[in-house]
Amino acid sequence: MPVFSEFASSARELRVFRSFAPSLPRLAPAFHPRDKDVERYEVVVVGAGPAGLMLTLLLARYGLSDDSVLCVDQKAGILRSGQADGLQPRTLEVFKMLGLADEILSDGCKMYEVAFWNPTLDPDAIAQGRVIERTSINPDISVPTRFPFEVTLHQGRVERILEDDLRRYSSRGVQRSTKLIHVEMDAAGDPECPVLATVETDGVRRLVRTKYLVGADGAHSAVRRSVGVRMQGESTDHIWGVADFVADTDFPDIRRRTAIHSNSGSVMVIPRERIATGEYLTRLYVQVPGDVAPEDESARDDGRARRAQVTLEGIFEQAGAALKPYYVRPKHGFDQVDWWAAYQIGQRVAESFEVKDDQSLGRVLIVGDACHTHSPKAGQGMNISMMDSFNLAWKLAYTIQGLTPSPTNIVDTYATERSSIAHELIEFDRTFSSMFSGKIGSKTGSETLSHEQFLSVFNKGNGFTSGCGIEYPANILVEHGAPSDTDHVSGILRPGRRLLNVSVKRHADGCVRDLHDDMDTSKFHILLLTSTDLLSPGLSTTALARIPDILASFPPTLQLTVLHPRLDRDFVWEDVPPPVKDLAEMRFYNGVALQDVYATYGVSPDKGVVAVVRPDGYVGVLAGLDDLGRVEGYLGGCLRGL
Amino acid sequence: MPVFSEFASSARELRVFRSFAPSLPRLAPAFHPRDKDVERYEVVVVGAGPAGLMLTLLLARYGLSDDSVLCVDQKAGILRSGQADGLQPRTLEVFKMLGLADEILSDGCKMYEVAFWNPTLDPDAIAQGRVIERTSINPDISVPTRFPFEVTLHQGRVERILEDDLRRYSSRGVQRSTKLIHVEMDAAGDPECPVLATVETDGVRRLVRTKYLVGADGAHSAVRRSVGVRMQGESTDHIWGVADFVADTDFPDIRRRTAIHSNSGSVMVIPRERIATGEYLTRLYVQVPGDVAPEDESARDDGRARRAQVTLEGIFEQAGAALKPYYVRPKHGFDQVDWWAAYQIGQRVAESFEVKDDQSLGRVLIVGDACHTHSPKAGQGMNISMMDSFNLAWKLAYTIQGLTPSPTNIVDTYATERSSIAHELIEFDRTFSSMFSGKIGSKTGSETLSHEQFLSVFNKGNGFTSGCGIEYPANILVEHGAPSDTDHVSGILRPGRRLLNVSVKRHADGCVRDLHDDMDTSKFHILLLTSTDLLSPGLSTTALARIPDILASFPPTLQLTVLHPRLDRDFVWEDVPPPVKDLAEMRFYNGVALQDVYATYGVSPDKGVVAVVRPDGYVGVLAGLDDLGRVEGYLGGCLRGL
Repeated sequence: MPVFSEFASSARELRVFRSFAPSLPRLAPAFHPRDKDVERYEVVVVGAGPAGLMLTLLLARYGLSDDSVLCVDQKAGILRSGQADGLQPRTLEVFKMLGLADEILSDGCKMYEVAFWNPTLDPDAIAQGRVIERTSINPDISVPTRFPFEVTLHQGRVERILEDDLRRYSSRGVQRSTKLIHVEMDAAGDPECPVLATVETDGVRRLVRTKYLVGADGAHSAVRRSVGVRMQGESTDHIWGVADFVADTDFPDIRRRTAIHSNSGSVMVIPRERIATGEYLTRLYVQVPGDVAPEDESARDDGRARRAQVTLEGIFEQAGAALKPYYVRPKHGFDQVDWWAAYQIGQRVAESFEVKDDQSLGRVLIVGDACHTHSPKAGQGMNISMMDSFNLAWKLAYTIQGLTPSPTNIVDTYATERSSIAHELIEFDRTFSSMFSGKIGSKTGSETLSHEQFLSVFNKGNGFTSGCGIEYPANILVEHGAPSDTDHVSGILRPGRRLLNVSVKRHADGCVRDLHDDMDTSKFHILLLTSTDLLSPGLSTTALARIPDILASFPPTLQLTVLHPRLDRDFVWEDVPPPVKDLAEMRFYNGVALQDVYATYGVSPDKGVVAVVRPDGYVGVLAGLDDLGRVEGYLGGCLRGL
Repeated sequence: MPVFSEFASSARELRVFRSFAPSLPRLAPAFHPRDKDVERYEVVVVGAGPAGLMLTLLLARYGLSDDSVLCVDQKAGILRSGQADGLQPRTLEVFKMLGLADEILSDGCKMYEVAFWNPTLDPDAIAQGRVIERTSINPDISVPTRFPFEVTLHQGRVERILEDDLRRYSSRGVQRSTKLIHVEMDAAGDPECPVLATVETDGVRRLVRTKYLVGADGAHSAVRRSVGVRMQGESTDHIWGVADFVADTDFPDIRRRTAIHSNSGSVMVIPRERIATGEYLTRLYVQVPGDVAPEDESARDDGRARRAQVTLEGIFEQAGAALKPYYVRPKHGFDQVDWWAAYQIGQRVAESFEVKDDQSLGRVLIVGDACHTHSPKAGQGMNISMMDSFNLAWKLAYTIQGLTPSPTNIVDTYATERSSIAHELIEFDRTFSSMFSGKIGSKTGSETLSHEQFLSVFNKGNGFTSGCGIEYPANILVEHGAPSDTDHVSGILRPGRRLLNVSVKRHADGCVRDLHDDMDTSKFHILLLTSTDLLSPGLSTTALARIPDILASFPPTLQLTVLHPRLDRDFVWEDVPPPVKDLAEMRFYNGVALQDVYATYGVSPDKGVVAVVRPDGYVGVLAGLDDLGRVEGYLGGCLRGL
């Protein structure tokens, strides 16, 4: 193309960079980071594991600068010692919405299936030395989700992905070699920043004031101890060994998630990612024989002594006994095993997730392992922790940026919502761990646990473990129930639950879109599923006519998304009410072209529905198309009116 | 998880980084980058546009270090002045295999559909001032491909993606502010590095010797001029204006690729990516009225004069006339248009793609715009250019690393294969451009071109324009035909064509896989589709038994992939021939669980087939399961025997 003349604007040069997430507008007064030489922040995050990094990253993306947010971590460098490895479907959905899922989906190990092995009852097999047989192979994920699999990947890599992205928004990143010494409430000293923390960097202590302080500092949280919040719960009686290695084995299901109940103890196989050699890692959880009594002083000592006796060779001996006649050993020798450890299962939850100031506002919050510990078997650790932060981040950011109504405090809903999840977590983990440590009834008949029971717990738990079926209790951000004239609204579109992703066809360009990909995680969404009368005056046109006023009465953090059901004729822009093109040109979809979204969501095409979806993707309220006042009422409770 | 003891290997720390592509083994003697103070390389790449960056990146990924490869570019910084914006399905497939597609797929604009508008014949519409009407909306891509859409994205962003990845493998990256002054053959001076180049960095000239020099320096290639290769072809008579901007318009198809033939001239709408403001770019190509005669001296002057008269305002006036009664204008004013230009269509191809040394080995090669120029209408520019490099890179790397047999020269197949494509390109572009610049018969009946004719050229061209249907002619790397007993092999699995991606279910873990994702672009692949007798002695077992010997007789750049059709029973590893697990544990798939790959590829499940797939994903040869000698013969022609 022999161009003779061209003109280019300088803005064009910026178009070469990766997209940035849109930040939130600030209606609050500007923040002054220094006051009489005291270092001040709006949020201090203690700990840069998955929970702390996720929180810090989200705050940065929402527009809080390095002057406003400080994340400290006591480790000197980017050493990655974490041991979690599983990412659940809901976590993947969130990473995808944040634009952070690609590397995980490309390079992580996807677990589509789970295999169950149990003691064999076949006399011929037993005579041949086989102690177990495969009972079934089932889908690993049995609930509707965009990503019907778990992914395993080294926790350090997940942290690196978060930190790489953080550095696009923050020039400081994480302040390392810095630990929290003490935290206390001191509203008298600075009412705007009532939290006073002492931190130590390389042996030098300093005082830091902040509006909010978040403890994301793990199971031994200094923040939690400093504010005197106790953990509740106990350790159970089972000791397990765990190892990551490249396997040399003839066990047929080494590349599937596999739960093995054998008479010599239980084993769980977790396939892991491919490494630089081109080989694949395997993680093995092995039950160590013998029980200890529920925890009291002597049991604790006994547990310690028994854990100390666990050796790497012992783990493999035990695995070999449970898998007989199959063998499993490290391909490159025992000295080349990636990592191994021994641990005792325990389920504990913090008695409180926040500490309030004298105005009854939560000022110190704890997230992640700092407020819940449990066994690793269900692959929950990193997930629940990062989702704690995903729940908290936008509430902090909206409050700090002045987008919420006064005196409502949406930050407090963090504790309401996530402590309910943490209790479900340890409840599920207690049942699941105990069943997994138990024996499946063999032909001796001495045990009562059956495979069907175990499978049932596994499948029922899947809504919870996948993260896709969790439901937040009613609170100011979750308005349960709907007026009687919207009782057609049922099923999966439900206040307190995350909006399920669906495939839709966009009107403007005929593109196949995942609804999640067009939903900005910084905004509230009015999701309007029109009724079949969209093309003539009726329910839909009346509802749509009210939308411009609603949007105009709140800060510009509200977005309209419109879906339509099967209509009786083709149409162009001029046939639909103007607010659709004006406010949702690139978010107006055919909801039945690729899948029947109305059926999936449980919405009658004759009646339609309006949902408000929160920035974190949870449905906040449902209303009939003739009940937009309900939408306005809900929004008025979360967002400052203009 | 209260761990009491853990042990971790240091290799574990490396697991946090993004994966690197595996490099090729080197059987050739080590290269000495300096000889008597002369700077020496194995490859010098001139130009860091899409073609040059792709080539340099691939060479680096294949294991050639900064000592071996130098890429120079005359621009001082990472200024991005390129104007291409379209990525075709085959280009996306290649980017995906290289792990570079994620950002493009997330942030680029996907064009699933193309709309055609033509002069309206409806008297009522004409009376209302409408000059055009939408004739149809068609799929933009009508051939089988993993990605059934085009993506548009600023060329500079594509370059940045390539360069970011290059910096993971090369600490030097591109040497900038460096231009090629002269290149000549000088085997006498250094037989190993017979190409002698003069380059100038910031005004300082130096001599550089190299085994190969590649001109990726665009339409005005200094390399091409220096070696005296001429372009053949001519400019045609149409002048077009082009502009990138955020549109304010009521035209209904502004977000679709749209070809508009109106009596006031033709317009093409190309929707573009979303930008930081949240708005979407649009590109408009507008035909400038009036014709110039085919190029001679006076026409050239006339063309220049007419191009000089094109103004931005004129482009929009012309667009407005063609789109009547719809309006289109820059949303933020004419001074905020991203870019605009005027150009005249021309189709030219270099008379030769390589210059040989006195041993008849190609030593200077040209790629991209340096060897073919054409109109931008079919969105081919960046694609054909990068695919030139994708074709050349592995041939250079295999040769340089000593993996090819002597005296075979696989580098020469670059010119054979890609000049055939370049000629197809300009032939298609000439037809398509001319039809697009022509008028569709209106009710005046004075023109003969019909919409059906235009649509037919558009659809027929789609195999070529998508990149998915191109076919390389027979040469040492493409063995056409198959023995008579494999005449069941037909259809899409065809020597010279790229292997179509298919969805398969992996035996080892039940994972849903895209076949492309498990095919390393540094290796040759033996793709074996077994027959239905896999589980008992027969064709498949006999063929598989020969594979270990074949793999052992060549360098470790050969990989086995096995698919099976529907079998008469379930099976485990021990039921299939040992080479499957030994050599293809993670590349053994059920070929009918998710889609019927045998039907898609045109392979009889009763007979099976073996294909050799080249590192660039093109089928090299097909053979029956009883004809592995054909596979050995083919490989012996491309790879050095051990």
